[in-house]
Amino acid sequence: MVGTITVTEGEFAGWLTWDLKGTFDQTVGPFYFRIEEDGRARSAFRAEPRHMNAGGRMHGGALMTFADIALFQTAYNEMEGRSGVTIQLDSNFIDGAYAGELVEATGEVVRAGGSLVFVRGQITASGRTLMTYSGIIRRFKPKE
Amino acid sequence: MVGTITVTEGEFAGWLTWDLKGTFDQTVGPFYFRIEEDGRARSAFRAEPRHMNAGGRMHGGALMTFADIALFQTAYNEMEGRSGVTIQLDSNFIDGAYAGELVEATGEVVRAGGSLVFVRGQITASGRTLMTYSGIIRRFKPKE
Repeated sequence: MVGTITVTEGEFAGWLTWDLKGTFDQTVGPFYFRIEEDGRARSAFRAEPRHMNAGGRMHGGALMTFADIALFQTAYNEMEGRSGVTIQLDSNFIDGAYAGELVEATGEVVRAGGSLVFVRGQITASGRTLMTYSGIIRRFKPKE
Repeated sequence: MVGTITVTEGEFAGWLTWDLKGTFDQTVGPFYFRIEEDGRARSAFRAEPRHMNAGGRMHGGALMTFADIALFQTAYNEMEGRSGVTIQLDSNFIDGAYAGELVEATGEVVRAGGSLVFVRGQITASGRTLMTYSGIIRRFKPKE
């Protein structure tokens, strides 16, 4: 099981991050998250030049990677400690993001059935909606 | 305009790659492509531990980044030298990929209208289908 770390310094002090050294999460991130007062998860990262495409705008792959991670943060309670995999992620790209911007994701669980959790959410930066997405997680059976 | 480089050594000798140092393409890739005898584009990269999630399977973000890049390779002829942006990418995750595997993408243009190019494709490794996707590119007007 991957553990979480509470960040103690820098702009994300007080946020949580996953202890995922050497994985794709760290190749693109790290990404940060916290639970808001209303109980909903908020995910965030700071856009850097390494997230941009040749045109100086954030690459769709960086946004979709962030969406896939935010999907699981949004569904955290419904996962009930079980692991799972994304089986579908549909992405609409609405506006560009630029190096230096704080990029954030929020979302909601639309339905959690037996093995499927349906989530939708949005990624924003500086008040602009960059991307909307909807995804389906298949959660595995609890370990006996 | 970003140039292409023909790879001269290593396993991708003879393939092309984009000269995209410092961009997200290089953060996740590099990715390689070539035109097959039937005129269709094939894209590829070698899966490494840095593309994996905590469970040792390829992260969906790596697959979606590759899909977004393969989308443009597939639509290369229809872009007619114009640039464009992905406005939608829908992804279905079917099987996992593992470090060391050769990951490849192929696809087809379903329709190229005035400003929109509709593409669908699939990502495979070792004969398994990992992901299917469909995407829409908005191509910009040619520069006068």
